[in-house]
Amino acid sequence: MNKYGLHGKLTASAGNRDALASILQEASKLVASAPGCQVYLVSTDVSDENSVWVTEVWDSQADHDDSLKDQRVRELISKAMPLLAGSPEEGQTLTVLGGAGIK
Amino acid sequence: MNKYGLHGKLTASAGNRDALASILQEASKLVASAPGCQVYLVSTDVSDENSVWVTEVWDSQADHDDSLKDQRVRELISKAMPLLAGSPEEGQTLTVLGGAGIK
Repeated sequence: MNKYGLHGKLTASAGNRDALASILQEASKLVASAPGCQVYLVSTDVSDENSVWVTEVWDSQADHDDSLKDQRVRELISKAMPLLAGSPEEGQTLTVLGGAGIK
Repeated sequence: MNKYGLHGKLTASAGNRDALASILQEASKLVASAPGCQVYLVSTDVSDENSVWVTEVWDSQADHDDSLKDQRVRELISKAMPLLAGSPEEGQTLTVLGGAGIK
């Protein structure tokens, strides 16, 4: 069955990329046990020193949306917001057809 | 330890997206058991009816590069090539710092 995917870039203000990545990795630990979470990756971009990419696969969009209601996740989002540069968003919403590394 | 990630778009010529996605899903079955392959996802883009995104996580770039030497993978690439529209490539090479869904 198809899954819900998100691949999105967050751009940190100068000097804050690693702090942002660290917060997102904390978030990944929280959502790892959330219902429907299959993948939540935190990556840097070899060609852009200020950005962090988050790649998510969920069983459904509802599972993803529910994860954002978790108070601990919301606290991490609040911590991350001041580190962002406010650049336009970039990325894709995906319909994950299948592949390796998901159930 | 950091992983090697790739997120790239393949654009099919008109009417060929599903055939392209199908070939890539065959490829995902082959590489699922390749050394160092953690994730190989095949997705469509909700905002672009002609493209397929492939999202890969490997233990190392060498593991990825080795996978392309597999004769069966090369045959699938040969099948996929004529379906491509030849649009400019789009995507990112990533350093996957961590997250959920990988080992």
